[in-house]
Amino acid sequence: MTKVLILGGDGYLGWPTAMRFSATGNHVHVVDNYLRRDAHHANGTRSLTPIARDLPTRVSVWEKVSGRRIACTEGDLTNWDLVAEVFDEFRPDVVVHYGEQPSAPYSMASRGQCVRTQMNNVVGTLNVLWAIRDITPDAHLVKLGTMGEYGTPNIDIEEGFIEIRHNGRSDVLPYPKLPGSLYHCSKVHDSTNIHFACRVWGLRATDLNQGVVYGIETPETRLDERLQTRFDYDETFGTALNRFCVQAVAGHPLTVYGKGGQTRGYLNIVDTLRCVELTANNPPATGEYRVFNQFTEQYSIRKLAELVKQAGAQLGLDVTIDRVDNPRVEREGHYYNAAHTKLRDLGLEPTLLSETLVESMLGVIQRYKDRIDEAAIPPKTTWRGEPALT
Amino acid sequence: MTKVLILGGDGYLGWPTAMRFSATGNHVHVVDNYLRRDAHHANGTRSLTPIARDLPTRVSVWEKVSGRRIACTEGDLTNWDLVAEVFDEFRPDVVVHYGEQPSAPYSMASRGQCVRTQMNNVVGTLNVLWAIRDITPDAHLVKLGTMGEYGTPNIDIEEGFIEIRHNGRSDVLPYPKLPGSLYHCSKVHDSTNIHFACRVWGLRATDLNQGVVYGIETPETRLDERLQTRFDYDETFGTALNRFCVQAVAGHPLTVYGKGGQTRGYLNIVDTLRCVELTANNPPATGEYRVFNQFTEQYSIRKLAELVKQAGAQLGLDVTIDRVDNPRVEREGHYYNAAHTKLRDLGLEPTLLSETLVESMLGVIQRYKDRIDEAAIPPKTTWRGEPALT
Repeated sequence: MTKVLILGGDGYLGWPTAMRFSATGNHVHVVDNYLRRDAHHANGTRSLTPIARDLPTRVSVWEKVSGRRIACTEGDLTNWDLVAEVFDEFRPDVVVHYGEQPSAPYSMASRGQCVRTQMNNVVGTLNVLWAIRDITPDAHLVKLGTMGEYGTPNIDIEEGFIEIRHNGRSDVLPYPKLPGSLYHCSKVHDSTNIHFACRVWGLRATDLNQGVVYGIETPETRLDERLQTRFDYDETFGTALNRFCVQAVAGHPLTVYGKGGQTRGYLNIVDTLRCVELTANNPPATGEYRVFNQFTEQYSIRKLAELVKQAGAQLGLDVTIDRVDNPRVEREGHYYNAAHTKLRDLGLEPTLLSETLVESMLGVIQRYKDRIDEAAIPPKTTWRGEPALT
Repeated sequence: MTKVLILGGDGYLGWPTAMRFSATGNHVHVVDNYLRRDAHHANGTRSLTPIARDLPTRVSVWEKVSGRRIACTEGDLTNWDLVAEVFDEFRPDVVVHYGEQPSAPYSMASRGQCVRTQMNNVVGTLNVLWAIRDITPDAHLVKLGTMGEYGTPNIDIEEGFIEIRHNGRSDVLPYPKLPGSLYHCSKVHDSTNIHFACRVWGLRATDLNQGVVYGIETPETRLDERLQTRFDYDETFGTALNRFCVQAVAGHPLTVYGKGGQTRGYLNIVDTLRCVELTANNPPATGEYRVFNQFTEQYSIRKLAELVKQAGAQLGLDVTIDRVDNPRVEREGHYYNAAHTKLRDLGLEPTLLSETLVESMLGVIQRYKDRIDEAAIPPKTTWRGEPALT
């Protein structure tokens, strides 16, 4: 039985991932510091879906429903004693690391939140690397990165590395990064540290540079309403497509930032789980640092908004699209072509947006329509904002 | 009168830089948290040169000798209140940022020292970026980086950016980084954050990717023994050539790590000061992030050892060379060719090693020969060391 440690196991993706690994017969231990629950509390916002009040409750419901046990630790990865204790006692074979502050606007809103983001993400990941090095050196680190590390270069994006020919010589080097927020910078820092740990300490790791995830349901979350995962649509934690779907159901115009030409990679939450599973089942060699680009389809923001408008019409929703001033500093029209074959080669069969948008997104959101707080939707954090209260 | 804020102004380079800017008629304010003095104290080591006991003493001697005042703050850049207060009151035009933990072995010796290094360097620099953004947005950040960010790629190293042609398209992108220690990783993180702040907030910054500095004296340190800068030769803080010169004087074999084919860029301390001065006098445009490679000559470790042996012979020293097991994980024979024309174009006239080695290095070290502690010289920290006490 494989022992899978899931860091950030209370999150949007962490909790469904924990249930999936448990359902498929692995021994699972989750850790979370509730950073996102705390930030929601501070902002006066919440998940659209009602979720169980804490990890112990979640794992207790899971045990009743599935007959399987998940162990949990409520605590912070920046606390070395806690990290060392978890690794010492659990001795993981695989470490799936979602345990990071994941919001770009959060990291841009103030100095304090920027420092908290980089501290939480960089120090947490350093502690995990030292724990693997000194306690479970054969463990495979599966780290969630982001496609946002690459930015929007004018050349094809490769999976982590690129062969560069220059002045008659050549080398395969880390793909250059142009992160779009201080959160994205923190993920670039993590990648640098993890690559180092593989090169120099001989650890093994896979960095999953994930696109924007959409979707609400997985086979396990459907088993019981108390097993649902969180679904954020607020300006801080909501991702583009999830926000558009909530806006469509609420009768709020879809808020396209600027010209809407921003193109990114997207994937369904069920494909995230499948990618992590495929990665865990196919570990790299000792000392190897792999990067997989984890998404299935590329869309521009404008195109996404049009798809949501069309899907809404099928449900009788009259969806309008508004262009709002872009709160971010980013190119609104640009070249974008990112490789994403490595996970397909391992067996990923993409779930297509067109197949899930109407039923599994808009349909589920309608069920919780009366929980939508429209005031949480408009963007307030700007990338070049006035001096922030810090 | 230009207002120059010098962060890390108590250090090997920071203190001579402060005196230089003061001597040339600028208004200077220095900040230091004494991280290096504290680490020496903890290790039972010290500077070869006797130095004044703290910054207030140093600036008071400087005022007596030169008639010029330097303001100082003893404190930590990770303390936002302190950073904000210094920027609010001093309102710098130029921020010269040396204020970082600078030792690779220190960062590799234990988890605690690794985290302290990345925290100190990354959070300190983030605070400086936010202070510039919100308090003095026109200030020019002159940040000391390191050539060690690049590692030893198999292609020519350019100054910060490289044009990449790929699949029929091209872009100029950040030069890929292969940092060689967790300290070097922290400098890569800084570069990522500073580049972001220029692109997105419109700050202006110059990242000086400096080679290995050698030398003891500058025109200002020669004015009075109490104005001397520190000179480290211990395994933690001593750099290669400085250590070799102390070994030569002490009658200790020069400790070449491994095959000695490791090639790096080197420069004299007086050229560091000149580079920083040229950079400050030629600021980048608003929103521009520049990178200069700051060194004057490339040498392999083996060649450096031979030069010290020859110079020693001129002073009647019988210098021997020992190969010791390399405590680091690095290539010992590799291609190395790094561009370094931008500072030359601004007017840098290199001081050559051959001109200073005998008199200004070995000669000065002989003066302090009885302060040499040979036990501080051998490397103890290994890159793949046993699990550390953390």
